[in-house]
Amino acid sequence: MADAVLRQALDRAVDLARRGPARDPNPRVGCVLLAPDGSVVAEGAHRGAGTPHAETAALAAAGDAARGATAVVTLEPCTHHGRTPPCATALVEAGVSAVVYAVPDVTAAGGGAQVLAAGGVDVRREPHPGAEDLVADWARAACLGRPHVTWKIASTLDGRVAAADGTSRWITSPQARSAAHTLRSRVGAVLVGTGTAHADDPGLTARDDDGMLAPDQPLRVVVGTRDLPVGSQLAAAVAAVADAAAGRRPADHDADDPRPGEVVHLRTHDPAEVLADLRARGVHGVLLEGGPTLGGAFWRAGLVDELLVHLAPALLGAGPHAIPDLGIGTIADAARLELVEVTTLGPDLQLRLRPTTPAQED
Amino acid sequence: MADAVLRQALDRAVDLARRGPARDPNPRVGCVLLAPDGSVVAEGAHRGAGTPHAETAALAAAGDAARGATAVVTLEPCTHHGRTPPCATALVEAGVSAVVYAVPDVTAAGGGAQVLAAGGVDVRREPHPGAEDLVADWARAACLGRPHVTWKIASTLDGRVAAADGTSRWITSPQARSAAHTLRSRVGAVLVGTGTAHADDPGLTARDDDGMLAPDQPLRVVVGTRDLPVGSQLAAAVAAVADAAAGRRPADHDADDPRPGEVVHLRTHDPAEVLADLRARGVHGVLLEGGPTLGGAFWRAGLVDELLVHLAPALLGAGPHAIPDLGIGTIADAARLELVEVTTLGPDLQLRLRPTTPAQED
Ligand SMILES: NC(=O)c1ccc[n+]([C@@H]2O[C@H](COP(=O)([O-])OP(=O)(O)OC[C@H]3O[C@@H](n4cnc5c(N)ncnc54)[C@H](OP(=O)(O)O)[C@@H]3O)[C@@H](O)[C@H]2O)c1
Ligand SMILES: NC(=O)c1ccc[n+]([C@@H]2O[C@H](COP(=O)([O-])OP(=O)(O)OC[C@H]3O[C@@H](n4cnc5c(N)ncnc54)[C@H](OP(=O)(O)O)[C@@H]3O)[C@@H](O)[C@H]2O)c1
Repeated sequence: MADAVLRQALDRAVDLARRGPARDPNPRVGCVLLAPDGSVVAEGAHRGAGTPHAETAALAAAGDAARGATAVVTLEPCTHHGRTPPCATALVEAGVSAVVYAVPDVTAAGGGAQVLAAGGVDVRREPHPGAEDLVADWARAACLGRPHVTWKIASTLDGRVAAADGTSRWITSPQARSAAHTLRSRVGAVLVGTGTAHADDPGLTARDDDGMLAPDQPLRVVVGTRDLPVGSQLAAAVAAVADAAAGRRPADHDADDPRPGEVVHLRTHDPAEVLADLRARGVHGVLLEGGPTLGGAFWRAGLVDELLVHLAPALLGAGPHAIPDLGIGTIADAARLELVEVTTLGPDLQLRLRPTTPAQED
Repeated sequence: MADAVLRQALDRAVDLARRGPARDPNPRVGCVLLAPDGSVVAEGAHRGAGTPHAETAALAAAGDAARGATAVVTLEPCTHHGRTPPCATALVEAGVSAVVYAVPDVTAAGGGAQVLAAGGVDVRREPHPGAEDLVADWARAACLGRPHVTWKIASTLDGRVAAADGTSRWITSPQARSAAHTLRSRVGAVLVGTGTAHADDPGLTARDDDGMLAPDQPLRVVVGTRDLPVGSQLAAAVAAVADAAAGRRPADHDADDPRPGEVVHLRTHDPAEVLADLRARGVHGVLLEGGPTLGGAFWRAGLVDELLVHLAPALLGAGPHAIPDLGIGTIADAARLELVEVTTLGPDLQLRLRPTTPAQED
């Protein structure tokens, strides 16, 4: 089949995949079945946990027309026996003659290409950046066995997150705060401890520079045994949902308008338990925006994959520290990181770092 | 006169100037007198405080041949009545017909070009980067009325200069330490407090990566009322000089080998007094390598022109702070700086910053 036809089908498969839910245990996948003459036989996309995979959906739509067709799919077909049968096997059984896929599946569900080839199907990989973007977070989380965690800190040059009197608005520039909102719109969940919920009354939504909600909103997660502060933005969001569910108040949103993410309150101190809960909710990436207590707990548990520092060119000389006591007594035990990226955000710096020493277990 | 001839004479004048002392109240200047046919009539360079300026030296060497000559000089001739008469006047009186200079004199001694023009001399500026480099530090200090101060800090991401047990070797990488030695070789003086002299026993010399002394060595200045620690590198240097002066020990150096800078102990706590003393010694630039006490004192006195942070991608979570209490209580009073330059030094970052808020006076 002509390369141009295949690439066009792949673009279409990526479009289909994009309509699936970003927060889902499964990856977003799209599939297009092409007849030998290049015409579209059927399409399919994954619509969320418990629904058919993209390939199965397309095969069902095609029926007998699948025989001899070429399946163009954004991700290597799975070999996973889950709620649905493995797609690689289904494609062989349906009698497709060729499979073109964009992204290899590096998780435990991978190996589909080999299963297909063994079943007599002509298999080829055709890289596609759009398809890679779609599954990057899911693949990373699948390999980690938990959501990827980015600990974000806004601090002065001398490592302070607030002044001596506790004031912290604003340490960083509008440009840095805008970048933080973009970061929120790209993760499945934003995390704070009850300490930050009490001190700062954060909204934890992703907004654009005009204050409008971004189309993609993260889950808003508060960790800690205390109740949410009465009258806080997060408590109000929980109450509004309860009211609407009980029919006490009509939903006051246009169904198409973006809505703030659900608020989840996890009454635990165990970072691993937090991540297991979020994984079950289909979260692949977490932005940890809590204070030093929650951040330090994740760090000591070895559950910080990336540190993102918004560094303001300012000195305070006093006030709470961005980084809490980590139990490090001597210079040889310093937690070392690798500086991965340095960018400017207006007057501030953004440093992206990855831990290089294995973080200490509790 | 042909441009090429003038430029060649200027190159020569820069070479002559470079032989002058870097640590001197006066700038390093070179002068070449050309006959109308382009041949060299005489040369001159400034050799240090109390000796003739470059122009005067060249005029003296030329005698009557100065009449009708073109003076090519690295810096705009001075109008300053000091230990020697103003050079601009001397050039007019000697009857030179033209003056070509590379760098305008922006200090109180400037204005020579006007004096020359008023005296009927044909004056022209011919920019030359080498000549600019030669006087940059001197001009900066002349305008400030004191040496320029760079406060250098090596810290972790979380603003610590040592671990909880006081250990600090090595927070930064070999590349950062090598850059620090280069910085030392470019200033007139390196400064620490007695606290650092006691804690770290620093040598404060400028060495290359093989441990060899660089050709240019800064004065080594210790500030504080306590004596230098017995047996320390700095105390040993003072003792060696005293011994040699008293004839108790022969000088064990080849005269051409670089020697460590003189050790100066200033028993004061007043940063302005320190800078006045160093200015009198001809120091134009100071690298402040002391601990938080001395650095904080300079900062609060408004005497830090530049902050240079060697930032190691490491976390300590405890230990002494790079920046001491600055008396800042609330976020609105944070000391704001402007990030001027970001460079990498191996795994570390070097941030060059300039204060933007007027630093508080004591
Ligand atoms: N500049 C920044 O980047 C930034 C970001 C966020 C916050 N902050 C500042 O940080 C301050 C709040 O600091 P914080 O440390 O209290 O906030 P936090 O870490 O967000 O919340 C601390 C709370 O988290 C709960 N928690 C969850 N896991 C825990 C564990 N393993 N161990 C102990 N406690 C755990 C505890 O709540 P329970 O007691 O309810 O169990 C604890 O009191 C505020 O001043 C805020 O402005 C700064
Ligand atoms: N990482 C880095 O960039 C870096 C650089 C240097 C030092 N350090 C660390 O800093 C620690 C030493 O800190 P430090 O603050 O003691 O060192 P320091 O600032 O170098 O020395 C402090 C001493 O300076 C004298 N001093 C001069 N002017 C003063 C003033 N206006 N007010 C008060 N004292 C004044 C006092 O000595 P007298 O009592 O004798 O009068 C004081 O004890 C060591 O652990 C060292 O390793 C780190």
